[in-house]
Amino acid sequence: VGDTPSFVYVPDLGAVGAGVALPDDEAHYVTRVCRARPGDGITATDGRGALARLRLLAVGREVRAAVESIERAERRRSAWVWCGAPEGERGDWMVEKLAELGAQAFQPVDCVRASWRGTGARVARWRRLAIAALRQSRRRFLMEVREPVPVAMAAAARPPAASCWLADPAGVKGLPPGSHPGLSICAVGPSGGFAPAEAGLLESSGFARIRLAGGRLRAETAAVSWCALWAAGEE
Amino acid sequence: VGDTPSFVYVPDLGAVGAGVALPDDEAHYVTRVCRARPGDGITATDGRGALARLRLLAVGREVRAAVESIERAERRRSAWVWCGAPEGERGDWMVEKLAELGAQAFQPVDCVRASWRGTGARVARWRRLAIAALRQSRRRFLMEVREPVPVAMAAAARPPAASCWLADPAGVKGLPPGSHPGLSICAVGPSGGFAPAEAGLLESSGFARIRLAGGRLRAETAAVSWCALWAAGEE
Repeated sequence: VGDTPSFVYVPDLGAVGAGVALPDDEAHYVTRVCRARPGDGITATDGRGALARLRLLAVGREVRAAVESIERAERRRSAWVWCGAPEGERGDWMVEKLAELGAQAFQPVDCVRASWRGTGARVARWRRLAIAALRQSRRRFLMEVREPVPVAMAAAARPPAASCWLADPAGVKGLPPGSHPGLSICAVGPSGGFAPAEAGLLESSGFARIRLAGGRLRAETAAVSWCALWAAGEE
Repeated sequence: VGDTPSFVYVPDLGAVGAGVALPDDEAHYVTRVCRARPGDGITATDGRGALARLRLLAVGREVRAAVESIERAERRRSAWVWCGAPEGERGDWMVEKLAELGAQAFQPVDCVRASWRGTGARVARWRRLAIAALRQSRRRFLMEVREPVPVAMAAAARPPAASCWLADPAGVKGLPPGSHPGLSICAVGPSGGFAPAEAGLLESSGFARIRLAGGRLRAETAAVSWCALWAAGEE
């Protein structure tokens, strides 16, 4: 009855006044989880900054809605996390948490001491996890999950204006990655750490060593901790 | 051959010159994971600030070692996390991450909208996870895992000098929980949030509302994010 708190991801929102069909996963979410009915209002994002008010027209195997209004926003600041492979399936929760915290991109990096093996299926799963986290946190920007690349290739292609950080227990404590207005990037080594040549390459590419905690952190913990520092400065 | 990187938890370290028997889990870790041999040196903590150098005497079903040196430290600053029940088994990773980040205590709190049911077995599992994280992060203080209490009881018993925070998407952004020198406490609501009366009670008890990110965070994400802000100020 009335408006439900549903929040869904609809990559192609169309225009105000038009009708849209919800993607299968979102249709399932709206009908089975939120138990929405025809006439209910829901909120949708295209994951690229648009937030739309939808009115459900048909709820069944297909869920259709009318677009009542759309409001668009630009990203003001953004965070990328480059991360070496952690142990086991710890990448899953890292992806979920980075997406909740509002990272713009998750870039798995292959390193001397660990590579992301068999990531084909994992990248697809991570993209689903990022969508689930988008809904959960009611964000209007979907986190991009990139294909793994070697860390040297990522470093060579880094945007020059970015504020760049290297997670390192021997780094400087108390640095404020949350205060930078544009793009911030954090590089986190795999479970065995970056090789000295990799850390040196990053440092010569302008990455500043940051100490995130007093003890040693696992790769996924360092990635999420840095992103939490960054997210604390969000509007 | 020679020194291994083993780091173990031995609650009763005894005195320099004495012998100690490693607890079963630690003995298994030293023999099966680190493949240590008699004569190897290892590092041990009692989880209460002592760091000891041990020399392995016997490695087998029982692992015995001689205590070569002990050095003790006091905690300078500490963090407690009070957290309502998150969804599913998400408490497990919260405990692991809070322990890695160096929290002093994890206090599950029962709330109007969610209680920690069947926590008997979970508290025991969490204590094992805290020990595993102590080893992983090579810390000298073991995180204390407390039994669940109602949030009002926790609030009534809070130490008066503590710096207290309430995770709230409508709170103030950019606050620095990492800068307080003594005890800091963060209260995080369960998956449905604190009831207004609970949030009001905390606020009247001196808890300041802090906004940790731009979107809604899951309970466990808020707890870990706050602890990451706190940990960034660690020596």
